[in-house]
Amino acid sequence: MSRTEVPPGTARAVRVRAGDLVRVIDVEGGQVGDVFAFTDSGTEPAEHHSAAHTRAAIDRLFPAIGESFVTDRRRPILTLVEDTSPGEHDMLIPACDPARYAALGAPGHRSCAANLAEALDEIGLSFTGAVPQPINVFMRVPVGEDGRLSRLTASSRPGDAVTLRAELDCVVVLSACPQDLVRISAGRLSPLAIETVHNGGTRS
Amino acid sequence: MSRTEVPPGTARAVRVRAGDLVRVIDVEGGQVGDVFAFTDSGTEPAEHHSAAHTRAAIDRLFPAIGESFVTDRRRPILTLVEDTSPGEHDMLIPACDPARYAALGAPGHRSCAANLAEALDEIGLSFTGAVPQPINVFMRVPVGEDGRLSRLTASSRPGDAVTLRAELDCVVVLSACPQDLVRISAGRLSPLAIETVHNGGTRS
Repeated sequence: MSRTEVPPGTARAVRVRAGDLVRVIDVEGGQVGDVFAFTDSGTEPAEHHSAAHTRAAIDRLFPAIGESFVTDRRRPILTLVEDTSPGEHDMLIPACDPARYAALGAPGHRSCAANLAEALDEIGLSFTGAVPQPINVFMRVPVGEDGRLSRLTASSRPGDAVTLRAELDCVVVLSACPQDLVRISAGRLSPLAIETVHNGGTRS
Repeated sequence: MSRTEVPPGTARAVRVRAGDLVRVIDVEGGQVGDVFAFTDSGTEPAEHHSAAHTRAAIDRLFPAIGESFVTDRRRPILTLVEDTSPGEHDMLIPACDPARYAALGAPGHRSCAANLAEALDEIGLSFTGAVPQPINVFMRVPVGEDGRLSRLTASSRPGDAVTLRAELDCVVVLSACPQDLVRISAGRLSPLAIETVHNGGTRS
């Protein structure tokens, strides 16, 4: 088991093998995280997890336990195997980005979009493509009957975790969302952590 | 006013200027269409309409009349100005693609993803990026209380139309969805049409 700390407002990338477990932990509680997964093809990320293709694969807004996130080529990349949080996550809203913060009057603010590129760069991957729509763990965006979206504050508790199984050799990025102008995370920005467990014997 | 016929299962691209109106017409009724919009930057599409950024901009699953679809840089690109259909459209499901038809046992079937590249190529644009999640007009994918998605057959009537105003100079692509293995369109595949109206005087 190896553990990677993700300081508040930053991101980290980890490489995992098919069969490995990736645990995304809300260390202090109430912190939204943006998760991305890419196939690990050498020098740059290629196939990526896709929110839209995942919805089509499961006919649901977010996977239930045992269901998979799939790539833009409709291949399972991560399976949701355990969730100790209240189970409210989002897969409708994009990563925060420079345009979002400029509109909020805070140009130059850290963002999950910039964090993604930074985290990939740190492990030697250059990222120039469009930012995929993230898996927003612990983010609460309920859909009303008329299709209206609400943005509520994260209700995850200290130590709550989502466990994913890698279905392909891949790079998983976790950004501890730096959004502190809109109250999607509770209280001040706080850290997340990634634990990876090598499951052995199931490499694809 | 100019009119472009979109034969069943194919796509066409049109160039429009900021202020122009683009009308997407379901000629015979019950036909799903995939709409894409890209900024017109010369040789290849750059900024594109983004389903996720649009949801974030309007806090709704699909724009209401008067609301805009925005790009991946959060700039309005198309505004929904009129809708004579029953008003059920989708912005959750990806374009059908070769992987989708292979899984349905029909490799080599036409797809909206391939149609998009073909239509852009016909107007001299080379498209190599990821296929954006389309605006699926006339496609009925209601969201249940538990986040479950249903796929119902299109209920649009002959001549029903959605009218969009371009907010940027852009390329709009309309694919008359070739999906005939899953009953999202009613009856046999049928044509769509695009009418563009130059509004004048409002170029950006």
